[in-house]
This record gives sequence, structure tokens and C-alpha cells, in this order.
Amino acid sequence: MSATPAPAYEVVGYADASVRLLDQTLLPRERRALILTTVDAVAEAIRAMRVRGAPAIGITAGYGLALAAERAPRGSVRAAIARAGATLGGTRPTAVNLSWAIGAVRAAADAVAGDEDAVRAAVVTAARRIHADQIDADRRMAAAGAALIPPGSRVLTHCNTGPLATGGLGTALGVIIAAHREGRVTSVFVDETRPRLQGARLTAWELGEHGVPYRVIADGAAATTMAADAVAAVFVGADRIAANGDVANKIGTFPLAIVARHHGVPCYVVAPISTIDPHTATGAAIPIEERAEDEVLRIGDQPIAPADAHAFNPAFDVTPAELVTAIVTEAGVVRPPYAGAIAALVSTAASP
Amino acid sequence: MSATPAPAYEVVGYADASVRLLDQTLLPRERRALILTTVDAVAEAIRAMRVRGAPAIGITAGYGLALAAERAPRGSVRAAIARAGATLGGTRPTAVNLSWAIGAVRAAADAVAGDEDAVRAAVVTAARRIHADQIDADRRMAAAGAALIPPGSRVLTHCNTGPLATGGLGTALGVIIAAHREGRVTSVFVDETRPRLQGARLTAWELGEHGVPYRVIADGAAATTMAADAVAAVFVGADRIAANGDVANKIGTFPLAIVARHHGVPCYVVAPISTIDPHTATGAAIPIEERAEDEVLRIGDQPIAPADAHAFNPAFDVTPAELVTAIVTEAGVVRPPYAGAIAALVSTAASP
Repeated sequence: MSATPAPAYEVVGYADASVRLLDQTLLPRERRALILTTVDAVAEAIRAMRVRGAPAIGITAGYGLALAAERAPRGSVRAAIARAGATLGGTRPTAVNLSWAIGAVRAAADAVAGDEDAVRAAVVTAARRIHADQIDADRRMAAAGAALIPPGSRVLTHCNTGPLATGGLGTALGVIIAAHREGRVTSVFVDETRPRLQGARLTAWELGEHGVPYRVIADGAAATTMAADAVAAVFVGADRIAANGDVANKIGTFPLAIVARHHGVPCYVVAPISTIDPHTATGAAIPIEERAEDEVLRIGDQPIAPADAHAFNPAFDVTPAELVTAIVTEAGVVRPPYAGAIAALVSTAASP
Repeated sequence: MSATPAPAYEVVGYADASVRLLDQTLLPRERRALILTTVDAVAEAIRAMRVRGAPAIGITAGYGLALAAERAPRGSVRAAIARAGATLGGTRPTAVNLSWAIGAVRAAADAVAGDEDAVRAAVVTAARRIHADQIDADRRMAAAGAALIPPGSRVLTHCNTGPLATGGLGTALGVIIAAHREGRVTSVFVDETRPRLQGARLTAWELGEHGVPYRVIADGAAATTMAADAVAAVFVGADRIAANGDVANKIGTFPLAIVARHHGVPCYVVAPISTIDPHTATGAAIPIEERAEDEVLRIGDQPIAPADAHAFNPAFDVTPAELVTAIVTEAGVVRPPYAGAIAALVSTAASP
């Protein structure tokens, strides 16, 4: 994967004690870079999904702690880090990377016995390390995942799992982009991914930026696409993976996995080890965020249902491990039965 | 079903030599009744989908012929009927009810040997008969389908199959409305039904008008809803049913049926016998219309994907017979194996 160039856009970054974000709510219409200088602004950006994707959220939260540490008045650095951790930790409930990243950066601060400058430096270093590790993990996942795809394949993906989601090459979409460069993927079916349309808005935009041919489909059209023998494999990301291999991911992943199994199409989950939560025994224990009804009832500022309509809007679903063909991590490809393999992965993974 | 009142809105009607239509393109925002006095205006309304749903289109075309006959100058009634038949027959290529209804009304005119007043009367009577027969068929389907639902159930439906689609009580949605009145259905999950959002726009509006509690969901959320044991049954309509029981219906029906089977939830198809095409052996022989890419890439006038994006937009999919729990018709409920049962239905059905 050494030939993989960086994407032509900065998803998340840190400079001058400020968090830099590409505002994903404006894509694909506008490419606007945000420069955030307060923890509240970072929290708002995560909550409003200006940055989304579990790894990118974790990186952003880490940089948010760095910002808090660097900007705190003398004498209040450790308190500012603790406050920022509490604020940022409450922004999104489902992704495990958020609390993991906050914990890692806070641990780096706690490990410093020295003065506040040393704490600040340790926090910034830890936050940058999370980002660098993600970029490295993405490269490894892309290589391992691409090797699963026969040359000349069409694949199907859901939601957005590209650079926008991880701040690196991406997870599932990183595999697809890498596999396209190797001639393994010829084109991609992109689930539009209602209600927030991350597929139509973000994945389509990223594939265009990387020169990969694609067609957007309504989420309900994936089955027909598979029935026409047009899909060699499904690649999706994960927001959280339980110890038994159950996968929480964007709403619509679970039916896609059922439909793929019905058609004998392999369904691969691509996720860094940090996405695995060994303390969650099964998917039943993963909290599923219910988001505002208006995400379903309006598109942009346009109402699509009666004014007094109600909606049920679970943001994620849980795909049982038995529907997952393999999990692609930075440490290699894991196949069923998952429980033992996942335990081994987590215990041997160097916790960054 | 004698207690079933008429809906509080007139979908299609005929009075004063004029066709009356509720403009479905404006729903749910505006309830505008159109009064059409020319064949060209009726043709435009069908083409622009101001009226949609195969049965409702057929009824509208029949009334269009009545309008032509009643308004034709003396001496040109038969010619006007022929011209109107040609004009209306070319409005939508796929709806079999359209050409069937036009043929039935023209046959009624041809059977009259008397003067033009007798022809006019015969044409109006034939057009009203098509509508009355649909209302009757809908009532029978509603009664037969409602009996399948245990009291206190939540059900799930896709697309729009209510009064708006048939000019009667509807097919699948007619069952649900009737079952709600009987205390069998407590609430409904409504697939929004991308790309044209008939669920969010039309089914939600109709359930509201009939006082049935509902929640709109993204199409990809149906699996999670079923996994939570929240769905007792799935009810959908059909655009065409093959001789073996394969069902062509709105895109998104096939994955819904797969997901329902995965969860052990029955999937019922509600369709009049006129929907069955005994000359189509299996679903593989049903042509699937591909519609404009912009239906996926834009919502209303709002682009949701990059400007240079492409889409794949099949309007229908085919659900294999083995995923259909039963087919509810006006002549009763048909269960697998379908081939023999369907042949018997079609041969005994009095062709209206």
C-alpha cells in the first residue's frame, strides 16, 4: 500500500491549538474548512455530525482535549482536560472510539508527573498519536481487505467509511479505493444511506475524488442489484463490535447483511481493533442512538411527510456475527468463530 | 366490512361530464381537487402522476372516455371515444389496467347499436362500473386480509397502496385501515420508500386521514424494527404477479421480504386478480422499468449527490414466490404452492 497517496482533502487536523475540520454537513455542495478554538465548538461539531465516523470522532475528541490543555490558563490545565473529557464524552453514545480516545489522552496526561507544560505536551502528543495510528491502521486494513477481492469485481458499500470517516484512508471505503488501484474493483454500488444520505453525499464525493467509478442506489435497490449477479462483495464499516463479533453500524447494514447472505454474497466488516469493545458481550448490550424524527421527516429544509407525522429513527443497527463473512482489521482478517479470535486480537493489540 | 366508511377525500370521481382528481403530486402539503374537462388534461394528469397506482389510473382513463363521449358534438361521439382511447392509452406504458380499462369502455360503446345518447350512456355506465368493481374488490381484500392479523398488532408496509392508489379502500393499506377499525392493528411502521417517497408522502397522509397511528421509518430500518419484535406482519401490494407467484412491486419490496423471512415475520401481498398475469411464467420474465437517475440523485429540486454522480434506479423488484406467505385477493387468500392456486383463481374469476 506504499503507493497510496493521501487524499486531496484534510478531514481532521490540529494546528495552532485549534481543531481543523472539513464540515461534512455541507458536502458535496461546499468544501468548507472549520477552525475550532473551543471545546464547546468541537462538541457541537461532533453532535451536529460536521465530523462523523467512529475513528474520525475519536481523533477529533483527542484533538479537542489537546485544544483544552493548550488553551487552559496556568493552574487549570488538568481541570480543563477533565472538563473537556466530560463534555466531549457525552456528544455521541454509540461509537466506542470516542470514550476510548478520551481515555487514552487523559491517561497520557495522568502519566505525567511534571509541570503543566509537560502535561500539555503529553496530551498533544497522545492526540497526534491516535491520528497517526489510525492512518497506519487504515493502510494495513486496505491492504488486507483488497486481497479478498477478485480482479474485475463490482462491490457494494453502505454509509461512508472513507477518509472522511477516519481521518486516514478509511475502513471499508479505504479497502475499495485501494482495491480499485490494484484493478480488483472496477466499480462500486453506493447505498444512498437514508436518512442522512452519507452514501449519496459523502461516499459518492470521495469515490469521485479518488477516481473510482460508482453508481448511487436507493437502499432498497441493493437486493435487486445482487440478484442480477452484479455484486462480488459487500464492504461495510463498524461503529462498535461486541466480543462475540456482533457489529453495530449505520442503520441499513443489518438488512444488507441479511440480503447478502440470501444471495451468497460475502459481507465483510472493515474496522480497526479500537472499534472492538471486549466489555460488550453481544450486540444486545450495545446502546443504539435514536436520533431526531426530523432526520426522516425532512430532507434538508424540505418536509417529505405530513406536518403532524411521527418517525422512528434508530441511527444504527446490530448485525449478528453469523451474517459477517469476515472482519478485516489492521492486524489481519478474522473469520468465524469470532469470540476466540477477537479476544486474541484485543489482548495482543498494543493499546496506543 | 359494511362498517367501513368512505375515505374523507375523493381520489377520483366523475360528475357533470368532468373527471375529478385529487392532485397527488401536491400531497401532503396541499389538498387540491382538479376538475378536468378535456381528454388532454386527463392525459396530462396521468402522465405527470397527479393520479398514480395501476387501478386508479385505469379508473381515471375510463372516466376520460366518458368525458370525451359526453362532450363530443352530435355526430362525432364514436370518433371522440376512439381518439380519447388512443390519447389516454399512450400516457403510461406499463400499467396493464390502463389499456384494460380503455378496452372495456370502448367495448361497451361498440356493443350499443342505438343512437349517440345510448352510446354516451353506455360509456358512462361502463366507466362507473370499473370504479364500482374496484371499490367492491378492495372491500373484499380488506376483509380477507384483516382476518389474518391478530388483535393488537403492529404491522409494516411499503410504498402506497391506499385509496390514493385504487380509488377504493386500497389493497395492502386497505387491509391495514380495515384491521385498525377492528382493533387488529394498533399502529403501522411506514417505509418511506425511496426514491419517490410514496410511503412518507402518501401512505403517512392516508393513515393520518383514517386516524391510524403510524411512524415513518427509513427503508433500511425495517430489519431493526422486526428484530425488536415490533412487527407482526408485512403487507405490500403488487404491480404484477407471475403465474408461479413471483411478485413485481415497488423497489425495496424484495429485501423487505427477505428480512421478514429472516425474522419469521409473515409477508402478505394484497392484490386484485387483475394484477395476476397468467401469461408471465415467472418473475424473470417481468420487465423492470429503469427510471431517471435524478429520482435518486435529487429530492424535489434539491441535489443530494455530487453534480457529476450517476445512479442506478430500478423502479420495481421481483420477490420470489417462496418469500411470500400468502396472496390476498378479492376471491380469498391464496397460499403456496401458488402455481395451481393462481391458475384456478384466474380461470374462475369473472372478467369484469
